[in-house]
Amino acid sequence: MSTPYAFAHANRARFLEEYQQLLRIRTISTQPQHAQDVARAAEWLREMMLRIGMTSAEVILMPQGRCPLVLGEWNGAGADAPTVLIYSHYDVQPAEVADGWHTQPFEPTIIDERLYCRGAVDSKLHVMANMKAVESWLAADEKPAVNLRVVLEGEEESGSENINAFIAAHPERLAADIAVVSDGAILAPEQPSLTYGLRGALALELEVHAPVSDLHSGHWGGSVHNPLQALCEILAQLHDDDGAVSVPGFYDDVAPLTPQDRQLLQQVEPFLQAEWADVVAAPGQWGEPQYILPERLGARPTLEINGMIGGYTGPGMKTVLPAKASAKITCRLVPHQDPERVMRCVVEHIENIAPPTVRVTVLPGDFGARAVLLDVDGAAMRAASQAYTHAWGLQPVFERSGGSVPICFGCMEVADEVVIMSYGLKSGRAHGPNENIYLQNFYNGIEAMIKFIEVVGAGE
Amino acid sequence: MSTPYAFAHANRARFLEEYQQLLRIRTISTQPQHAQDVARAAEWLREMMLRIGMTSAEVILMPQGRCPLVLGEWNGAGADAPTVLIYSHYDVQPAEVADGWHTQPFEPTIIDERLYCRGAVDSKLHVMANMKAVESWLAADEKPAVNLRVVLEGEEESGSENINAFIAAHPERLAADIAVVSDGAILAPEQPSLTYGLRGALALELEVHAPVSDLHSGHWGGSVHNPLQALCEILAQLHDDDGAVSVPGFYDDVAPLTPQDRQLLQQVEPFLQAEWADVVAAPGQWGEPQYILPERLGARPTLEINGMIGGYTGPGMKTVLPAKASAKITCRLVPHQDPERVMRCVVEHIENIAPPTVRVTVLPGDFGARAVLLDVDGAAMRAASQAYTHAWGLQPVFERSGGSVPICFGCMEVADEVVIMSYGLKSGRAHGPNENIYLQNFYNGIEAMIKFIEVVGAGE
Repeated sequence: MSTPYAFAHANRARFLEEYQQLLRIRTISTQPQHAQDVARAAEWLREMMLRIGMTSAEVILMPQGRCPLVLGEWNGAGADAPTVLIYSHYDVQPAEVADGWHTQPFEPTIIDERLYCRGAVDSKLHVMANMKAVESWLAADEKPAVNLRVVLEGEEESGSENINAFIAAHPERLAADIAVVSDGAILAPEQPSLTYGLRGALALELEVHAPVSDLHSGHWGGSVHNPLQALCEILAQLHDDDGAVSVPGFYDDVAPLTPQDRQLLQQVEPFLQAEWADVVAAPGQWGEPQYILPERLGARPTLEINGMIGGYTGPGMKTVLPAKASAKITCRLVPHQDPERVMRCVVEHIENIAPPTVRVTVLPGDFGARAVLLDVDGAAMRAASQAYTHAWGLQPVFERSGGSVPICFGCMEVADEVVIMSYGLKSGRAHGPNENIYLQNFYNGIEAMIKFIEVVGAGE
Repeated sequence: MSTPYAFAHANRARFLEEYQQLLRIRTISTQPQHAQDVARAAEWLREMMLRIGMTSAEVILMPQGRCPLVLGEWNGAGADAPTVLIYSHYDVQPAEVADGWHTQPFEPTIIDERLYCRGAVDSKLHVMANMKAVESWLAADEKPAVNLRVVLEGEEESGSENINAFIAAHPERLAADIAVVSDGAILAPEQPSLTYGLRGALALELEVHAPVSDLHSGHWGGSVHNPLQALCEILAQLHDDDGAVSVPGFYDDVAPLTPQDRQLLQQVEPFLQAEWADVVAAPGQWGEPQYILPERLGARPTLEINGMIGGYTGPGMKTVLPAKASAKITCRLVPHQDPERVMRCVVEHIENIAPPTVRVTVLPGDFGARAVLLDVDGAAMRAASQAYTHAWGLQPVFERSGGSVPICFGCMEVADEVVIMSYGLKSGRAHGPNENIYLQNFYNGIEAMIKFIEVVGAGE
């Protein structure tokens, strides 16, 4: 058992078992009642780092005492060797059976070579595939030719509020030649892909109040602007008929697509169309008609309503005219858009169109992230391309992802190059019910990261 | 103790105690889990009818085996005497502390001469004030000069689905010279009012679906019509900027206001404006500008969103693009509008404006009621006017209520005249949190019904 590849192959069953152990821990960072679960997972990961032979490992609480970072190092390659920083996150989105799960959302369940569990894709897959690649290297006869730093975040799903501040305050702890951000998804089981762009994000909540308390809609209907209706009127004015966002200034700083972008994204389109037909399967596609699907998803900004509630929503009828209605909104941003400036545009527009018959409150959310655009022709991207070609037996295509990975900014501050390596699938239903991966993607992920470390170490 | 007035006065404390007993029973007819409570209240009322000396009393289950009618008779006035039918309902709307109650919603609580409880106004007040008026007459030396029928409904709040069919099938059981429908509210503690019009109603639910399951709004946002947004777009198109309903055909059959209507409703306006400022207190009034407040509330049809939900509505953020969004809607109707025809107009309009990028389902609700317009100059209305003048020491004004009382139609089929007698206040927050009455209204209600029976019996 002299190579990391052989070690990984021989330990597949145990690796899968440990992955499932982590999946069972309900690391829901947005829900304070799960703070203990997040803390328990952090400790579990720290112990694993030490067990597999990393030089040091530490659990670092974030300012409010929750959602710890887990930071591990292996410095055996010596001071002159390059350093690779590997990031992923172990916290997850909320999940309830009532959302439409066919299995218990926190009990990993394998059906037909797929594993179903909250976090299976996003992002415990990446946490565990990378840790197991590191373990395989440290157990091999020939040790890696690069120093390794692993950073595992516990509050990505609640906005990565603190990690970038931590990096800014302690740049030496994460400094690296190459930072690998491991989150997101590839295009298809048999088609690896590398993400060279990520959208940014911002969040806000909107509340509309009119009467001082809930009223009988028969007694008072017709004399007061129903908050649900006013909210609908406001939200209906945020897009034009073509699906473009109609907030003045929203597109002011948007970077236009280059010929290279258009050429790369065209290669991605057939895969995304197939995924769309499988995963989305709405009665029709929607969005800016002058952009193809991969451009709408990765290179154009959006404004989405993520939740809305008001009045009586239980069984049967209640003829109520509610005192309040509310909505949660996020925007996805593209290169050159500034979250603060876009937030100002959205807030001002909502305040401008709010009717005087209701009271509207806009609450800016506590996170905002710029979009990221990586160098398709850089050395890190080339090494990643070799790693995927090795693991999947096929060259990757290059896409821009619609999701947001705020950590990329922190990584850009401390590393010369950043590359994003994902192993799950877009069809894996991250954030939705029945989140899942093909087991093969877990094994391919381990293989790709072993190869990546090899290629970077060889300085090819 | 020879008169009913003296008996009622001497038994105030006991009457209040029994009223509170009924309020404690959670007679929520829209929620199947409270079917036993509704049945228990019906039996409690039947026993009371027999105890106070009515000739017979019966609990009659509605077709689905729930929500019984309670029907009592006293035929002591003889076959030649006129018959008065007195209707009210003992079922109530749902109520939860979380809706904003300052007390337990099903524990009657007296604070500063007001009694707070779900059903305090709507409509156990009327059930009990009328029963106690009947009890006072049957306990008096001189018995009433009219035969009495009391009908208490148990499914008014879930749409009065069966009572009118029951009346149509058994007209002889409710036949009367005058039917008193006791539900609704008067204008102010010191200003009694008589309602000569009621709005009709219809209900529907609207569902919008697009993706087959909840999606990550970062990964897929920009390519699919968000069901929440599509729902907002549809609902925002149901009113024009003046607050009028913009559904084609909606106003086609609406009866225009007569000069008498306008003159009567003008007298009501100061009271309603005061109530609005107290109960509604929104940033501004809203609605059709060419109509004054009592006209908007009682004589013009409306379309209201009663509830809406979709996506993530818990604490924190979840960047979900939901598979589904839904809304509950009711319309209030005015004379000459046909609920079926208006329903068709609304459903067709929604289907016409629904975008092809989503799937829209409109589910017509299971109740519809025409509006009611009563004769302001009829004998029953004159007797009621005398009764209120006696109980309050002040002549009533005449208004049109925004609420719906579907039973009026059944009553019109079996009685020569119908009159509506209410004792609670518009400010009593029927259907909302902290529903309440002034205790004095309970006593005035008993006094008014005693007087009404006297006046009708005297054939004045």
